[in-house]
Amino acid sequence: MHKLENEISKLTADILSDYEAGRDIDNINTFDQPKKDVIIEIINKLRNIIFPGFFKNGTYRIYTVRNNTTMLLEDVLFNLIRQISIVLRYKPEFENRDEADISDEAERLAISFLATIPKIREYVDTDVQAAFDGDPAAFNKDEIIFSYPGLFAVMVNRIAHELYLLNIPLIPRIMTEYAHSITGIDIHPGAQIGKYFFIDHGTGIVIGETTVIGDNVKIYQGVTLGALSTRGGQKLKSQKRHPTIEDNVTIYSGASILGGETVVGKNVVVGGNAFITKSIPDGAKVSIKNQELRYNYDTANPIQRAELEQDESWFYVI
Amino acid sequence: MHKLENEISKLTADILSDYEAGRDIDNINTFDQPKKDVIIEIINKLRNIIFPGFFKNGTYRIYTVRNNTTMLLEDVLFNLIRQISIVLRYKPEFENRDEADISDEAERLAISFLATIPKIREYVDTDVQAAFDGDPAAFNKDEIIFSYPGLFAVMVNRIAHELYLLNIPLIPRIMTEYAHSITGIDIHPGAQIGKYFFIDHGTGIVIGETTVIGDNVKIYQGVTLGALSTRGGQKLKSQKRHPTIEDNVTIYSGASILGGETVVGKNVVVGGNAFITKSIPDGAKVSIKNQELRYNYDTANPIQRAELEQDESWFYVI
Amino acid sequence: MHKLENEISKLTADILSDYEAGRDIDNINTFDQPKKDVIIEIINKLRNIIFPGFFKNGTYRIYTVRNNTTMLLEDVLFNLIRQISIVLRYKPEFENRDEADISDEAERLAISFLATIPKIREYVDTDVQAAFDGDPAAFNKDEIIFSYPGLFAVMVNRIAHELYLLNIPLIPRIMTEYAHSITGIDIHPGAQIGKYFFIDHGTGIVIGETTVIGDNVKIYQGVTLGALSTRGGQKLKSQKRHPTIEDNVTIYSGASILGGETVVGKNVVVGGNAFITKSIPDGAKVSIKNQELRYNYDTANPIQRAELEQDESWFYVI
Repeated sequence: MHKLENEISKLTADILSDYEAGRDIDNINTFDQPKKDVIIEIINKLRNIIFPGFFKNGTYRIYTVRNNTTMLLEDVLFNLIRQISIVLRYKPEFENRDEADISDEAERLAISFLATIPKIREYVDTDVQAAFDGDPAAFNKDEIIFSYPGLFAVMVNRIAHELYLLNIPLIPRIMTEYAHSITGIDIHPGAQIGKYFFIDHGTGIVIGETTVIGDNVKIYQGVTLGALSTRGGQKLKSQKRHPTIEDNVTIYSGASILGGETVVGKNVVVGGNAFITKSIPDGAKVSIKNQELRYNYDTANPIQRAELEQDESWFYVI
Repeated sequence: MHKLENEISKLTADILSDYEAGRDIDNINTFDQPKKDVIIEIINKLRNIIFPGFFKNGTYRIYTVRNNTTMLLEDVLFNLIRQISIVLRYKPEFENRDEADISDEAERLAISFLATIPKIREYVDTDVQAAFDGDPAAFNKDEIIFSYPGLFAVMVNRIAHELYLLNIPLIPRIMTEYAHSITGIDIHPGAQIGKYFFIDHGTGIVIGETTVIGDNVKIYQGVTLGALSTRGGQKLKSQKRHPTIEDNVTIYSGASILGGETVVGKNVVVGGNAFITKSIPDGAKVSIKNQELRYNYDTANPIQRAELEQDESWFYVI
Repeated sequence: MHKLENEISKLTADILSDYEAGRDIDNINTFDQPKKDVIIEIINKLRNIIFPGFFKNGTYRIYTVRNNTTMLLEDVLFNLIRQISIVLRYKPEFENRDEADISDEAERLAISFLATIPKIREYVDTDVQAAFDGDPAAFNKDEIIFSYPGLFAVMVNRIAHELYLLNIPLIPRIMTEYAHSITGIDIHPGAQIGKYFFIDHGTGIVIGETTVIGDNVKIYQGVTLGALSTRGGQKLKSQKRHPTIEDNVTIYSGASILGGETVVGKNVVVGGNAFITKSIPDGAKVSIKNQELRYNYDTANPIQRAELEQDESWFYVI
């Protein structure tokens, strides 16, 4: 064991000297930082408030709805004020303000955010309806509320988007990256999404910061609403880099729609795997033109071969 | 602090009045609801039963295999009866039945399900073998059992599918959506899957409710076995909307096979990114025909340019 | 309840008899096995060491950086020695060695691994910089460190790769599959990755075991760096099956680059969804050639139809 102690001293010394290199990752911050587990707990409590009859904990029954709502709100408010106080330090204008000022501002922001809950609930209710109407595999709305990843990812975006609009740094993105981790659906908090939004399956979806989505839009797994190129890096920061999707649009799996000037018009249907970099007018149905397939068959079976050559129907598929 | 108390009262009042809107999300259910954490624990205990020599907990050693199996079964049975009792209320025929009737039926269903464990184990054993045979990166079967997401997602489907066949609502889907969240692989509990099924990598795979898959099938990341269109919504509920994949088929990454009448015949190989909406006869190898690529090169390098123009081999890739 | 006891006895008997079938999953191992939760805890502690100023726990402040680093190292060393001792048993040359020999070797390997932390930190620091330079949506580097899934997946690969180079079985793959589960990014521990590596969004990325990646490479969601075919199964084990990506390459979303002899040269840009199976020379920009789209429009609107037919610009997109 004496040998191990020496090894640990040596390793510690090497790592401490590595911390002296002055790089960003060597930064031994002395101030507090946002706590991911607290932010996740805030999401869970907000979900309880949004769906008052679902996701109850064991002790719920002994309280009235009023008491329960008050308790949840107090808890969210307390933790949110604390987390916002921490991240406000990242904004240049708050760097040198005193603790009391920052705390007042954090309180004001947290209350402003909580006042948007009825608006968030109004949108989330339409999302549940859109999932039920759009998915023949849905047993009932409770199944959607308890298990659909798309509904969860969109609910977290709707929460994070309100915090984003209040110019609160880091917290909104920590929230949406948590949803991304749980669902495989990556929606930036900046994305602006209309009512009755339905994501089916969802894994691999990317929706960029400056995307604007209308009402009644339906999106399948693997769809990217992205930027044409991000070679410009930080210089592109405030530009509209992602598309606008108007009302009643359906985008099938694997399609990519790219560019800040790309507008997908009302009632458009975009077929699977289509790669779109220009605007599409209202009412159009766009799909990949006859993807050509080639085939080989079992040469040991000449009858099958002859049949295949007569029937070209399976040869080229759409 | 007095100010905050007032704010909380005001926020509570606003939210309580928002709960009065009579929408689905305003439903303050008084009856019990399925508990996701209990259902996840059931999956974990079933995994311990399926793989008796793996995933042991710390206290395992002091028990015999018999005692341990009995304990696990008792625990799963107790929790499953409770969860099934809760979800049976969602079925119209049980809505008004008394507690004792529901509990009896839940008991009957839970026991019927547990009796399928040897069948589930028979299939899961073939899945481990298929992963070992199919993946050159596999060190040994233990590595597959401990770390392969595809094996986990398929095991959860095999469990959930038996519950689905017993017409138990919500629980099967909560199980497969948990696996989806962990693995990025979305297999509906209704999907019927043969022996020796191997999913490699797996992220982004979607396998729909009415899919039928034969033996010895191998599927890569990003594959969709889906419906041609779900515009019909809830009206399509009981129809076969997803394809049939026969024995010994390999489907490479990103391919989409769509439609309830689409049958992929025995021994077929489907190439990456192919988009298939018609049946494919036995033995065919189908792939995208010469995807045309365009290129630009560094014009500052005329020698390279000349070389490129002579060698077109890299120009068009398959 | 008596009835349930009988049922449990019967189910237990059936399952115990099922355990007698002699298959791999029936193996009742008597020796210890790697513990996934301990391995995840090792990753978290290593992240604390890599980023000393981030991810602090509550009790951090009362310790000096030196004490905290020593404590973290002791903890990681203790647990890593234990886990390595367990998995060394999987190597034929250690199967019959006595406990003390294995423990010595595990100690040697754990210390060798910990000595690579400064190297890992050197690479991770460049990854943070690359994410900041490459993503206009990044608020600051703290946001990247706290929330970007790509950074986490690559950090775990850099840790697991060092353990892989020491020929430690199972643990590296359990680590990368944990990162895969959290991020949707599947990087095999064998993959060798240069400095300034940036993964944006990331879901669905697959990077195979024998992939080699240079410096300053940028990869988007859904990219596969894979094998051409794995039909050979375990026979292909030690061959180079995955591509080489040289310095300063950008690969856009959904592209597949396949095959062990495929080399993507310096400064290449690969466009979205391109399917590459041959080498690409330095400086080339490769993209899919005019993907042809077909469209239908609302026939009830003849004016729109006429306009569309005049303007073909949106008809064919790149």
